[in-house]
Amino acid sequence: MTCSPGIITLDRIKELITPLDLCPLIEEGFTAYSRGEVVVPPVGELCFDTPPGDTHIKYGHVKGAEHFVIKIASGFYNNPGIGLPSNSGLMLVFSSRTGILDTILMDEGYLTDLRTALAGQIAARYLARPDIRTIGVLGTGIQARMQVEHLLPVTPCRNILVWGRTPEKAVRYQRDMQALGYSVQTAKTPADVAARADLIITTTPAEAPLLSAADIRPGTHITAMGSDTPAKQELDTGILEKADIVVADSISQCRTRGEISKALAEGYITKDRILELGRVIETSQGKEGRQPRSVRLSDSQITIADLTGVAVQDIQIATAVCRALKKTEGKPHE
Amino acid sequence: MTCSPGIITLDRIKELITPLDLCPLIEEGFTAYSRGEVVVPPVGELCFDTPPGDTHIKYGHVKGAEHFVIKIASGFYNNPGIGLPSNSGLMLVFSSRTGILDTILMDEGYLTDLRTALAGQIAARYLARPDIRTIGVLGTGIQARMQVEHLLPVTPCRNILVWGRTPEKAVRYQRDMQALGYSVQTAKTPADVAARADLIITTTPAEAPLLSAADIRPGTHITAMGSDTPAKQELDTGILEKADIVVADSISQCRTRGEISKALAEGYITKDRILELGRVIETSQGKEGRQPRSVRLSDSQITIADLTGVAVQDIQIATAVCRALKKTEGKPHE
Repeated sequence: MTCSPGIITLDRIKELITPLDLCPLIEEGFTAYSRGEVVVPPVGELCFDTPPGDTHIKYGHVKGAEHFVIKIASGFYNNPGIGLPSNSGLMLVFSSRTGILDTILMDEGYLTDLRTALAGQIAARYLARPDIRTIGVLGTGIQARMQVEHLLPVTPCRNILVWGRTPEKAVRYQRDMQALGYSVQTAKTPADVAARADLIITTTPAEAPLLSAADIRPGTHITAMGSDTPAKQELDTGILEKADIVVADSISQCRTRGEISKALAEGYITKDRILELGRVIETSQGKEGRQPRSVRLSDSQITIADLTGVAVQDIQIATAVCRALKKTEGKPHE
Repeated sequence: MTCSPGIITLDRIKELITPLDLCPLIEEGFTAYSRGEVVVPPVGELCFDTPPGDTHIKYGHVKGAEHFVIKIASGFYNNPGIGLPSNSGLMLVFSSRTGILDTILMDEGYLTDLRTALAGQIAARYLARPDIRTIGVLGTGIQARMQVEHLLPVTPCRNILVWGRTPEKAVRYQRDMQALGYSVQTAKTPADVAARADLIITTTPAEAPLLSAADIRPGTHITAMGSDTPAKQELDTGILEKADIVVADSISQCRTRGEISKALAEGYITKDRILELGRVIETSQGKEGRQPRSVRLSDSQITIADLTGVAVQDIQIATAVCRALKKTEGKPHE
């Protein structure tokens, strides 16, 4: 017997996913993950030098679920120079009963971008101060845009202070985001961003710290999502030492990747100081259903969410697309 | 810009690959791997209990090559009971310059089966006695067939002695292989196979030894290819202790998977006793090009090849398909 998987293009994926409220699904994914209900093996990785790029394979399954998901996502940072997007990728949805490929989501990295932006939204909801006056952004790429757009349900703040390594890109970012209704100023240095922003999103592939502990004011929340390999780093380890609350999307993953891995290796923080995002969500929601509120204890605490990207996010978003597809097809998905 | 990968179906893959002489390519892959010219990260793995199955992600790249390959292959051993093949899978070929997906080979596990059978052919060429009178086979599935068929360039022997856990399957195997011109007898036990066969191929997903050291006669070559996870085992560790030559397709992989991992863990062999297949090929070929001959020192030596399957085989076979495709298209593949 020959099995033909469904191949879903990016346009169709966007059609299917736009009406969905994905945030509760991603939150459920994080809480299930923190309860140990999700099998997430270590991230597979290939790194390239010339030109520089990295490919990540994230995969896993919610125990007992009908499907498992393998996601392949690449970042090749010189691509824009030849007219291609930096990020690309696809998600493969398989039957957990037969191992047979069910659906190929040719999302070209879009679902990864989306679930990453949603994780940022979730981190901001539970960690940032409610009265954000300025959103600081380091980087000018796709996540510098999507993270901000996905803060809309969390804060009415529309003021952005952006820093980019390439001034022209910062200006383009300013123009694009102003067209979406934001008030955008550019900063000369990352420290200038930190001097005014209450919520900072770091979205660069930097391999050396952009911000140091002295830059960070009381009350700041930082969502650090640029660093997802052992080599990348956006925050000086002293920032994590200074922070009151340090949250990882995955504690096991953050031991070897992202900002936390650096701070652990240098002894600036200890493992027992790290909270896992799923636990933070669960704590905040309490037992009476979903009543999101910040878990910070005061407006002066410094909070950090280190997001390296966890396969459970991919599983949740891919499953949501497949469910929506099944509904529109009006027939069983298997 | 939207990038559309080519999607190549199994029928087309078979058309493209049938005229090719793949063995030199696979041998080149193994020798490049043993010379350290291939990046092969640890195998990704998901294991399922109900029903039992495992999914392997094998991936890597030949340094400097234009493409890299990610292969996903599953074995769900209850599938035949519901009319589905046990093995399924696909290979994804990406550009090493941009990370963008170039070609999806929807091979449904066929290329994995083929490159596995070719590795068996290579192992037999360099390790088995030249005068094989009986080919012994444990197992009755696809590899029990393909391994034997791919011995044709290595030996004129057409006598098979087969053992299968399910007698009906052994009878079906006998009938099918007889139709291909083989003389096939069935054996009551694995030990009966070992008592008469000069070359034994073990192709089962067994998790406990089927053969013990006392079963193995001098001069026997064993290609053990069924065991590719830490849990699976077909040979008692004493067999590896007794063997004169123990070859791994990948020494690093065989430390944690396959027959060798068990023998190492129990102290029956030491790491310095293991030869890597790429080195064996290189030694045998010498400096005057390809003149294959067995590396065994006498007709009475016992030789074992433990094949867990290495990503370089997948890279080589996927690249071969893509090159053939490019030729037929008469235009640059990129």
